[in-house]
Amino acid sequence: MNSPSELFLPHIAQMHGYTPGEQPQGGGFTKLNTNENPYPPSETVLQRLRAACGGDLRLYPDPQALGVRHRLSQLFGLSPEQIMVGNGSDELLNIILRSFAGPHHQVVYPYPTYPYYEKLIQLQQARPVVVDFEPDFSLPADFPAAQARIALIANPNSPSGTLLSQEAIERLAAQMQGILVIDEAYVDFAVGGCIALLQQYPHVIVVRTLSKSFSLAGMRLGFCFAAPELIAGMWKVKDHYNVNRLSLVAAEAALDDIETMRANAARIQSTRTCLQQGLRGLGFTVWESAANFVLARIFSPPAVWLYEELKKRRILVRYFRQRRLEDCLRITVGTDQEIALLLEELKNLLQHHSPST
Amino acid sequence: MNSPSELFLPHIAQMHGYTPGEQPQGGGFTKLNTNENPYPPSETVLQRLRAACGGDLRLYPDPQALGVRHRLSQLFGLSPEQIMVGNGSDELLNIILRSFAGPHHQVVYPYPTYPYYEKLIQLQQARPVVVDFEPDFSLPADFPAAQARIALIANPNSPSGTLLSQEAIERLAAQMQGILVIDEAYVDFAVGGCIALLQQYPHVIVVRTLSKSFSLAGMRLGFCFAAPELIAGMWKVKDHYNVNRLSLVAAEAALDDIETMRANAARIQSTRTCLQQGLRGLGFTVWESAANFVLARIFSPPAVWLYEELKKRRILVRYFRQRRLEDCLRITVGTDQEIALLLEELKNLLQHHSPST
Repeated sequence: MNSPSELFLPHIAQMHGYTPGEQPQGGGFTKLNTNENPYPPSETVLQRLRAACGGDLRLYPDPQALGVRHRLSQLFGLSPEQIMVGNGSDELLNIILRSFAGPHHQVVYPYPTYPYYEKLIQLQQARPVVVDFEPDFSLPADFPAAQARIALIANPNSPSGTLLSQEAIERLAAQMQGILVIDEAYVDFAVGGCIALLQQYPHVIVVRTLSKSFSLAGMRLGFCFAAPELIAGMWKVKDHYNVNRLSLVAAEAALDDIETMRANAARIQSTRTCLQQGLRGLGFTVWESAANFVLARIFSPPAVWLYEELKKRRILVRYFRQRRLEDCLRITVGTDQEIALLLEELKNLLQHHSPST
Repeated sequence: MNSPSELFLPHIAQMHGYTPGEQPQGGGFTKLNTNENPYPPSETVLQRLRAACGGDLRLYPDPQALGVRHRLSQLFGLSPEQIMVGNGSDELLNIILRSFAGPHHQVVYPYPTYPYYEKLIQLQQARPVVVDFEPDFSLPADFPAAQARIALIANPNSPSGTLLSQEAIERLAAQMQGILVIDEAYVDFAVGGCIALLQQYPHVIVVRTLSKSFSLAGMRLGFCFAAPELIAGMWKVKDHYNVNRLSLVAAEAALDDIETMRANAARIQSTRTCLQQGLRGLGFTVWESAANFVLARIFSPPAVWLYEELKKRRILVRYFRQRRLEDCLRITVGTDQEIALLLEELKNLLQHHSPST
């Protein structure tokens, strides 16, 4: 027999794996690399989770996630039929691509953005149409949304942290016949959000997550909002028991105590201001961030050197070896203390750096 | 603009949704319909879960699931490179189909079996080749595995509970050039298992789950074993953070205390004997089960009537409105008390049934 590896579908065989940010399993790192919230989840979440760690875990979860959808429907003024809950927003993005994009369909997204989009498009053998952001991370005037089967817009964007205005997003929606996906993973750190567009545009899908603002990256809970007929069709693509019992419990509790999320988001916004100012004071160019991280550019010393030196000092930030980002670091907004430590280490590194290093 | 529903890919638009077994969210049901374990998970699992309900939930889980894979590798004498962990075995089946089966590839499976296979094949636009089991739920001699891209064999099978011998499975493996998936969700209730085939057959994938024997259906934790090159390729298809932190904690603890699972499985085997004998005493035909459920046939009164009457009495069993199963009930092995209650109610129903009912 030939090697069974030859049985992989050609487009899978040709793919490269996706490399998520480092998740050191040993402790002792100041982790500013994967946009996790520095504050713990709400005490309500932790208490309800502990109470749910009992015999009922032998039973399947609710495949409809009714408790979570009910709460989301109340919070956002939508009907439960407009809501789907997923195993992280990544699963929902996967379901959207699998529902609407087949071989040769154009899926357009700006560059640089969340790199996982590329993989999801490849999995569907769809055709990625990748168009550079303007230097200020606005969309170019000729962004080719009109011809696209799907457009994927992270707003606020990662890794830039920048926010497109609701007007800019609405212009896209008005141009498009295809599906406009607005990935609002970071929206709770911004002022804005495009849920209101759902009323007028039945081809808009808004995707959100509890990973960042609700401090629940570890629980994998995403949700999306769309017209009922889109949700109903996407339902056929989702694994029936896709979200486990404890993630449902955590999500319900987190939404019941949304004030804790808002307080943490406000703290992070305040620290973000300090981080941006501190970095600018050290000579970095920093795009104005509406997220829980900032993108900072520096030409000398090289950003990759700073990344590596920080890592030696057990501070992890994110460095992307890719076009337009070679001179940048993406830094998650941690606590005030973590950011003070980071700025101190950066200051030392910049002082001791000489071009020959 | 036309309706955005027209944007669904044609094969998605044509699909029907999958209907999982009923999950009543109100209490008071004796739930013998979805093959959940009647016993709670190990106390070790619950304690470690409670201890893990803390601030670390703000952090992403380990995308490699190293702790779980290390334990599985020790337990089963395989290397971690031969193991993938999924959000339930459903996710792993999905990944396998997405890795190996494209439009027009033949995916063969026997009938009747786990109905979710059909949906996974449809999602890939692959070609289902469905061949009836023999009346005793052995494979027909001409089961067309040799031409298949993938063969899917649930062993023990659901809904029959029957077990194919390792020799029968090995005959398939020897015939096939494609991927042989052995879905061993229920194997801990049987004597057998095909992990040993991995040594000789690099195109075999064995899929397992913690849902049934480990009493963790609510946590969604599956795993599969295959040759390292297959696992490496499938890795490209999996969402990176596919299993949440608490499911990883639960899995590690469950595997550390495998004796509790074995003791519960032994209790269930013993109750299964009582259930089979009891049903036969009432006039049912019962296939010999190697799982935590039994398939029981009766011609009069109609099985669907018994299903409905039991439901009125707040006992849920599974009835399938499909060929070869119209006269059958699938009954999960509950506790001794639950099974005694079920048999008592069935006895009453049979006594009071008249052909005119």
